[in-house]
Amino acid sequence: MALTTIGFDADDTLWHSESHFLLTTERFCELLAPWTQSSRLQNPSSAKSSQRDLIETQLINIERRNLRLLGYGAKAFTLSMIETAIEVSAGEIPASAIAEILEWGHELLNHPVELLDGVTDTLDALAGSYELLLITKGDLLHQESKIAKSGIAPVFSGIEILSNKTAASYERVLQQRSVPAKEFLMVGNSVRSDVLPVLELGAQAVHVPYHVTWALEEHDSTDLHAEQFHSCRHISELPELLSRLN
Amino acid sequence: MALTTIGFDADDTLWHSESHFLLTTERFCELLAPWTQSSRLQNPSSAKSSQRDLIETQLINIERRNLRLLGYGAKAFTLSMIETAIEVSAGEIPASAIAEILEWGHELLNHPVELLDGVTDTLDALAGSYELLLITKGDLLHQESKIAKSGIAPVFSGIEILSNKTAASYERVLQQRSVPAKEFLMVGNSVRSDVLPVLELGAQAVHVPYHVTWALEEHDSTDLHAEQFHSCRHISELPELLSRLN
Repeated sequence: MALTTIGFDADDTLWHSESHFLLTTERFCELLAPWTQSSRLQNPSSAKSSQRDLIETQLINIERRNLRLLGYGAKAFTLSMIETAIEVSAGEIPASAIAEILEWGHELLNHPVELLDGVTDTLDALAGSYELLLITKGDLLHQESKIAKSGIAPVFSGIEILSNKTAASYERVLQQRSVPAKEFLMVGNSVRSDVLPVLELGAQAVHVPYHVTWALEEHDSTDLHAEQFHSCRHISELPELLSRLN
Repeated sequence: MALTTIGFDADDTLWHSESHFLLTTERFCELLAPWTQSSRLQNPSSAKSSQRDLIETQLINIERRNLRLLGYGAKAFTLSMIETAIEVSAGEIPASAIAEILEWGHELLNHPVELLDGVTDTLDALAGSYELLLITKGDLLHQESKIAKSGIAPVFSGIEILSNKTAASYERVLQQRSVPAKEFLMVGNSVRSDVLPVLELGAQAVHVPYHVTWALEEHDSTDLHAEQFHSCRHISELPELLSRLN
């Protein structure tokens, strides 16, 4: 059965996102550095990197613990940073540092949308032959605002903002549009969110890696040999891959 | 044209919500009381209530300022409480107090869903004669979680979680389902969100007040004399009102 419908993830597939979070994480680790103990470590430079790693690990653990309640996105991330700051500093962090974290949260929500190279041309090339869907997850308002700012919304025949990307949530999206799984292919940077649940439905998926992956989205793709699984180094390779598949 | 489709707001229309936020606001004002100045006020009891009002006013101002960026819901509220605490205390608030605010945020997100009196019977009475839609706004994950916990999801033929309730967002919901505005009636506790944008579309609306209204939803309904506007003291009056209208 020929493909009729292509789904696109948004963050780190169509526009930069994780790089902003990564930069904020670096500033966060620097902010907290004075509150970490390194007395047991001998080498000052390795001590510094170990401190940083300890803070980042603690942040990731707290994000993971909060995921069920706070979900994905910049507001959840900001709340988890504040919680981590209080824990790592054993309650010693001053309000001025928390105010700085709040400000970073606002900056994350306010960032201009920077499309990845090749996105506009690729979408334009495909729009004549396929129905294009944008399927993203995270903060409802923030995702809507990024879609509006991106300028590429008109190319999509449908936009779906999900709280989480599971086989069940993809299935609902396809059912609502009467698209059989065999006619659907999803494109995204996250094996966990954009590939595995889609393969589970019997649809196809293309992994286009972003240069950084958030720890909670990390997933090894080396063991993925399903016939429905493809990968591209760059989104601009997509039209050629699709003409081979169809 | 006869009504075919009834939309229901969720928070404070089907289940308690604002009462939890109000309780949290009270605890917040108490927490911050030590940092407010009352030297200019003579009467201790009026001084106390003025302090409380000052803190609440500042919280509402900060919520209003953050609305465009943070949107609606418990995560936005928690972030605004933290920002207010830092401002009101001029940066003197200790991390332990911020940790308490974070904990209240988690409690707000984790609350059991308590349906309002008469909701189940009313929905059951209407489900045979109308398409019922649940149309709510706020945190995507939190709203989904409340809908799942409520046990009443199966009675609705559609569920829409919006970032904001405007004439345009209601119009999109109706268009997606091919429901003419003349066949639609919306039921909710907020004149600003559930009544005015719906009347603007030429649809009908029933205001069912909740015993408290969030400051940012407050709107005077005394000047509303449109033929499409109705009000009930209680949701259980709805079936009778509808049979009069149809």
